[in-house]
Amino acid sequence: MPRIIFLVLTVLVFTLAAFAQAPPKGWQKGKGYGWIWGSADEVGALNAVRDPARVLAALRSVKTGRTFDLGVPVDKTSYRWPGHSPTEVVSYRSPEGVKRARDIPGMGDPRNTIAFHSCALFISDNVGTQIDGLGHITTGADNHWYNGFRESDHGLDFGVGRASADRIPPIIARAVLIDVAGWKGADALPANYAIGSKDLQAALAAQKVDVEPGDVVLVRTGTLRYWGESGADHARIAGHDSAGITLEAARWLVEQKGAVLIGGDTSGVEVGQDPALPGRAIPVHEYLLVEQGVHIGEFHFLEDLARNRVWRFVYFAATNRVRGAVAGFALRPVAVE
Amino acid sequence: MPRIIFLVLTVLVFTLAAFAQAPPKGWQKGKGYGWIWGSADEVGALNAVRDPARVLAALRSVKTGRTFDLGVPVDKTSYRWPGHSPTEVVSYRSPEGVKRARDIPGMGDPRNTIAFHSCALFISDNVGTQIDGLGHITTGADNHWYNGFRESDHGLDFGVGRASADRIPPIIARAVLIDVAGWKGADALPANYAIGSKDLQAALAAQKVDVEPGDVVLVRTGTLRYWGESGADHARIAGHDSAGITLEAARWLVEQKGAVLIGGDTSGVEVGQDPALPGRAIPVHEYLLVEQGVHIGEFHFLEDLARNRVWRFVYFAATNRVRGAVAGFALRPVAVE
Amino acid sequence: MPRIIFLVLTVLVFTLAAFAQAPPKGWQKGKGYGWIWGSADEVGALNAVRDPARVLAALRSVKTGRTFDLGVPVDKTSYRWPGHSPTEVVSYRSPEGVKRARDIPGMGDPRNTIAFHSCALFISDNVGTQIDGLGHITTGADNHWYNGFRESDHGLDFGVGRASADRIPPIIARAVLIDVAGWKGADALPANYAIGSKDLQAALAAQKVDVEPGDVVLVRTGTLRYWGESGADHARIAGHDSAGITLEAARWLVEQKGAVLIGGDTSGVEVGQDPALPGRAIPVHEYLLVEQGVHIGEFHFLEDLARNRVWRFVYFAATNRVRGAVAGFALRPVAVE
Amino acid sequence: MPRIIFLVLTVLVFTLAAFAQAPPKGWQKGKGYGWIWGSADEVGALNAVRDPARVLAALRSVKTGRTFDLGVPVDKTSYRWPGHSPTEVVSYRSPEGVKRARDIPGMGDPRNTIAFHSCALFISDNVGTQIDGLGHITTGADNHWYNGFRESDHGLDFGVGRASADRIPPIIARAVLIDVAGWKGADALPANYAIGSKDLQAALAAQKVDVEPGDVVLVRTGTLRYWGESGADHARIAGHDSAGITLEAARWLVEQKGAVLIGGDTSGVEVGQDPALPGRAIPVHEYLLVEQGVHIGEFHFLEDLARNRVWRFVYFAATNRVRGAVAGFALRPVAVE
Repeated sequence: MPRIIFLVLTVLVFTLAAFAQAPPKGWQKGKGYGWIWGSADEVGALNAVRDPARVLAALRSVKTGRTFDLGVPVDKTSYRWPGHSPTEVVSYRSPEGVKRARDIPGMGDPRNTIAFHSCALFISDNVGTQIDGLGHITTGADNHWYNGFRESDHGLDFGVGRASADRIPPIIARAVLIDVAGWKGADALPANYAIGSKDLQAALAAQKVDVEPGDVVLVRTGTLRYWGESGADHARIAGHDSAGITLEAARWLVEQKGAVLIGGDTSGVEVGQDPALPGRAIPVHEYLLVEQGVHIGEFHFLEDLARNRVWRFVYFAATNRVRGAVAGFALRPVAVE
Repeated sequence: MPRIIFLVLTVLVFTLAAFAQAPPKGWQKGKGYGWIWGSADEVGALNAVRDPARVLAALRSVKTGRTFDLGVPVDKTSYRWPGHSPTEVVSYRSPEGVKRARDIPGMGDPRNTIAFHSCALFISDNVGTQIDGLGHITTGADNHWYNGFRESDHGLDFGVGRASADRIPPIIARAVLIDVAGWKGADALPANYAIGSKDLQAALAAQKVDVEPGDVVLVRTGTLRYWGESGADHARIAGHDSAGITLEAARWLVEQKGAVLIGGDTSGVEVGQDPALPGRAIPVHEYLLVEQGVHIGEFHFLEDLARNRVWRFVYFAATNRVRGAVAGFALRPVAVE
Repeated sequence: MPRIIFLVLTVLVFTLAAFAQAPPKGWQKGKGYGWIWGSADEVGALNAVRDPARVLAALRSVKTGRTFDLGVPVDKTSYRWPGHSPTEVVSYRSPEGVKRARDIPGMGDPRNTIAFHSCALFISDNVGTQIDGLGHITTGADNHWYNGFRESDHGLDFGVGRASADRIPPIIARAVLIDVAGWKGADALPANYAIGSKDLQAALAAQKVDVEPGDVVLVRTGTLRYWGESGADHARIAGHDSAGITLEAARWLVEQKGAVLIGGDTSGVEVGQDPALPGRAIPVHEYLLVEQGVHIGEFHFLEDLARNRVWRFVYFAATNRVRGAVAGFALRPVAVE
Repeated sequence: MPRIIFLVLTVLVFTLAAFAQAPPKGWQKGKGYGWIWGSADEVGALNAVRDPARVLAALRSVKTGRTFDLGVPVDKTSYRWPGHSPTEVVSYRSPEGVKRARDIPGMGDPRNTIAFHSCALFISDNVGTQIDGLGHITTGADNHWYNGFRESDHGLDFGVGRASADRIPPIIARAVLIDVAGWKGADALPANYAIGSKDLQAALAAQKVDVEPGDVVLVRTGTLRYWGESGADHARIAGHDSAGITLEAARWLVEQKGAVLIGGDTSGVEVGQDPALPGRAIPVHEYLLVEQGVHIGEFHFLEDLARNRVWRFVYFAATNRVRGAVAGFALRPVAVE
């Protein structure tokens, strides 16, 4: 490779580093994102990090190529919030069944031994590792969600007609892990531990990293240390799952630090009961999804990242394209160092 | 940034370029992959491209950061192979239902207007954009699949106990598109068009690219030009869906060119009836999944790539972590240029 | 049979006739039933035939003890109205699966060879032989159903909170078959044949029977002659399925003749498009279910009754006790002669 | 009531008693039923009570016309044996959804206010009030069930191909309640109470009734006293649900007394662990379903019958005609006094 290419590439790397530092499109310090993308928009804050230059810069920031699987395995035993439907993965066709039925052309004839498995799934769009879509949460007497989409217009029998999870674009963005459990020296935070911005700042300081505007931010409570093969130990998981961020912390992350997606390793990311907001149900969901258009990443497996002290990485996730669904489910986001 | 870092980075880039040219681990020209990864292996040929250096090299090959979504949207109207179970995405909880039932703590009380949507899905693991797992296809009187896993040992009521789709690691690999429809000047290839290695070579020559060992290879028939919003026009899709590669072409891709995953834009990637193998059902599936341990990518949307003449890119895909499932379904693989 | 028994039976029949001739409770000639059972009632016109004396009289009217199964077998191939969800009956546990998994105490140990099958069903409450519940159909801007139950009060995420099909009491009542197809000399009536009260009267006259107040009335079009093993021949069934009664005929049956439940052998019992009511969708459903509180019996298999010329019998049906469901499905009502 | 009617009825009862006393077809004292109905038979012991004369006699034995609903209401909260799939009843179409989508011809247009509800069910064939089909239980290394039907021939992906629950004929038969809990003076028998033939005989003696050959026999433990609206109090139900009959009692009922169907008010009818058969799983199921071809009725609600001291009645039940299913589920059998 001639020397000139070396030069070009080095300049490029430098340039991209500059790009990365550019604030994400649309974000305003002290205000965050919000309904700024036009009345038809179904994407929200992720619009801020979609341009190719920014994707390129994120990918160029990869240092080692080590990958970390942030998805947890899901089956019918898996812990889930009890308000969602159960999970069943059932063998729909089996080699023996196919051969007995002889209902598939070319199979079951003694000369042709080929056959197959397929499964039928009965599954919630809110199970396992998830990204909540902007149509998940509603508020107001008119039951509206992000961007003012109203139930009376877009609430369908088959999911939501606007801002469903299949509209979430593939996400490739720089990301930071805030290991609150690690900073606390705890295996996992206790139930209902309320993570405020002070905790986040202290943990970041201990890690010697900071949140850059446009970052995906993942907050670790340690809860998924107890997931095991399938999340079957419900009592153990429930013993930590209500730890999470407060509304104040969410505001700080979005309005002061420019987080573009906020995730964590619990079923709801936010604290079970915000001490500053007695009686309010899921105020962080309402703030992030409805008001800010910021997606929430739930049950992200952060144990390997934390053990390896990988604080900065590229976050890659793509939800299933199931029309109408309100969350990406049983996902496998990937962190690339 | 000090000058020394520039230098380090340039050297790194050079080194990685070299890595990329290294043949994928385990592959042997003229032989391909096969059951070479140990008797417990559930991953197959993808083992060849998992080391961090190779991932890093792939990511460094990204040039523009443009992303292409290769997943098609799926709902109950979507075309699918009739042997799989149907798709239903049903609103499970709705804001109005939640408020009427008052069965969720903190919701339904007139002072708290927050509520939510969630959906229940009844869905096949073989629908929409898919990656077939190595447990999908069986052969032999003992109904074994990749690596000799047998039905009598690992065929469960809840999917397969070995080489299920949740064992497919996240895939980040260099990839090439072979636009056979484009080379033929056809909107979409006619039904049962048999794509042989000659077609692949001619299309590659016309595109002026080649398959490198370790590449993901995607073959375009043009069928998904007719997918539309949800794949509801079954007759139109069925009119092209049986075009695909022959066993001879699959062998050439794996054994001569080192393809590590073979995908396409039809429901089965392979030709409906291989002219060289009358009466044989899905010989390419048997060869790739069972014998070679090479995954198959189905119903990948290649129209945007072809229109933009993007022949080389990085392929990124991560299947859902649903235990026991035999394929990743309703996926959204991403091509990054 | 000794003479005394003849005598006994004669007297008995006479006595019972007296019982039977009592008009059903609540019914008014020229008016029918309606919302007369109190504001909490979820049962409707069937209240008219529930008292034990009437049940006893019905059972005493049985003459031979011959039974006729009025239910059609249902599986995933079965014809259904396309607006309802599909049917899947999937083996959930199998003996081989149980033995491989060893997850059931006492099973799978080589010394214990006992095992079991169970199935998981994904099924509509509107499939096969059905009795529509009074919550099935809504009308008005407020989407109310029978007895003024409104969607905004009782429309739940999990079916309906009032007048669901599990509230239908077991039905034991005298019944009459009106064989319109037989009277017409047709195998089955043509599509969209509109059965008016004149047809019903002519067929009854030909059969030499009449409808008594309080009777279940079943109207035969002959459509189910084409059901076969599972209703898989959709085109054939659809070719007759839209034959049915008009609103005028429904009114005559309820208001003049006192029918307490109206059934038939098609998916909707009423004519596809009522010639007197252009543009009106399912007026007979609205009239019977909402206004009169009269249940509708769909896809009742009447071929055996017709072939045996059994015009009068006792109708016995009990819907599943699935809370919230809006119809009894895949039922097997029984006619006892 | 005039004297002649008294006379008539007396004679009638006498006549019917004669009918009833005829032993059921095929039954042999000391042996029971078994595989005596031919190699294609899928019905078993119920063949013994199907002839019209016997049905007529049963119906003639009805004295008051009072009906008792023996089915328990089922929803997603209902207690079930944990090895079966869960229950969900989900609103599939709703009036508001229909009007918003305008996807149903004639609905959603502002001039037409008609709309509808329908539900999608995900449900087990082993939930709520059930009749176990003869294909439910298998035994032997060849996993055969009643009449020697083997898994390798008739075990399908979609339930069982022989002796599925849709082959159970409608049942109209004389029946007797044996109120063991009542005889014991207990609200409900304690967990694992083993009901032997001695208990049955003592309870029958206390009730002053006996089992006649060909009777349906229902044994009461009192467990369903705790079912409530939906069987949601799992701990309470589980505290009694393992009470039930022993193999010795089952043998006595079939071989000595000629019972043609044995039911009860628990999930399994038989005692959780038979004290005489340590380590044996469900021996009564194996004996009745596989060896004798005698159906088992589970979770039959017997509280109203017991409270009213109705020991003799006619049992009426018809399972759903869902092809392949191994049990009738969420049933509503009816007792008519």
